[in-house]
Amino acid sequence: MTITFFHMQPGPFAERCLMALRLKGIGFEEVILDPTLGQNRTPEFLSLNPRGTLPVLQDGSVVVRESQAIMFYLDKAYSEPPLFGTTPKEAGAIMQAIWDQTSYIEPLLKSIIGPLVFGKGDLSAVDAVEQKLVTELEALDRVLALTGWIVGNAISAADLSLYPLLFAVRASLREPAARNRCQAVLTALDQLPNLRSWLQAIAKIDGAAIE
Amino acid sequence: MTITFFHMQPGPFAERCLMALRLKGIGFEEVILDPTLGQNRTPEFLSLNPRGTLPVLQDGSVVVRESQAIMFYLDKAYSEPPLFGTTPKEAGAIMQAIWDQTSYIEPLLKSIIGPLVFGKGDLSAVDAVEQKLVTELEALDRVLALTGWIVGNAISAADLSLYPLLFAVRASLREPAARNRCQAVLTALDQLPNLRSWLQAIAKIDGAAIE
Repeated sequence: MTITFFHMQPGPFAERCLMALRLKGIGFEEVILDPTLGQNRTPEFLSLNPRGTLPVLQDGSVVVRESQAIMFYLDKAYSEPPLFGTTPKEAGAIMQAIWDQTSYIEPLLKSIIGPLVFGKGDLSAVDAVEQKLVTELEALDRVLALTGWIVGNAISAADLSLYPLLFAVRASLREPAARNRCQAVLTALDQLPNLRSWLQAIAKIDGAAIE
Repeated sequence: MTITFFHMQPGPFAERCLMALRLKGIGFEEVILDPTLGQNRTPEFLSLNPRGTLPVLQDGSVVVRESQAIMFYLDKAYSEPPLFGTTPKEAGAIMQAIWDQTSYIEPLLKSIIGPLVFGKGDLSAVDAVEQKLVTELEALDRVLALTGWIVGNAISAADLSLYPLLFAVRASLREPAARNRCQAVLTALDQLPNLRSWLQAIAKIDGAAIE
């Protein structure tokens, strides 16, 4: 059965799924759509995903949208390596980390990237969220000090969920347009030792250059 | 081992977990904290959950916060009945429904309940989201027409996630303060036939009166 993965570029949400596919060694066909050309609004694509959102995974008769659901589906269908834990305690901790990221870290990242990179939202709010984000990154650094991963002794969905977002923010903050804003966030991403090692370790798995 | 469940009242997020505990027939001790009295900021509680958020589940040495993570932990630790699917296809569909609710339905509910019930946010925005929410509820009604449940042939985490939110919104919209706003949403909740049957079926399981 052919697996087809529909996504757009750049796409930190798709990247979670791509990393899961690669980690599990699953062969797949990639279809890159350009929403600016309406390629996610064709009758053909809307018949797969009526919301028209990306990414979407098609595995035989199964169609899944929403990056977290795609990772979860892949983990159930292709068990090795496990991404959502092997014990109840690990499973709970991984899901807790994912919802923590969604509730506390993602909104801060959006408040910074929106105005700085996409010109959307309130630029004056950036300063207010900067310190909050640094505080979250410092807490993450303390967690990563234990084993090098967010939960347990191996990479999991908790790492795959957060990495593409932090990677994208780090790249954005290094662009000239953002150079004089959010230096505290960029410094945290570059210099908190365990966070830095974690970004490098995943970049290596992901085949991305991070320096 | 004693299971302790810390929550506040009223709490639609805690309600998801309480329903999972009851469905699985798990005995537990309930601790109700009042955030307005700072009971979630005591050193004792912060040692369990440094974020001070509710709900929190303590099961022996395991402590989990975030309602979705608590449901996931309970499902791994106490397998019957399964709440996150028994096949990869079901698992993916359940997680897709949960993230769909989080991405599309919850923000609309918040935009209505915030101004109408808690006096927070923009009251003038309520009209704009009303039709969007009705459209989501109509789509849900078509899904529920198939089996009576959001995914597959049985209640799952997808149902437990959404029900307490819709139940709370329905109750709020019946209050005098909201009576002349969002009639289209209240009508959808009361009259879409499959949605109505679903709300009643879960209320019965939950021991809540819904008429």
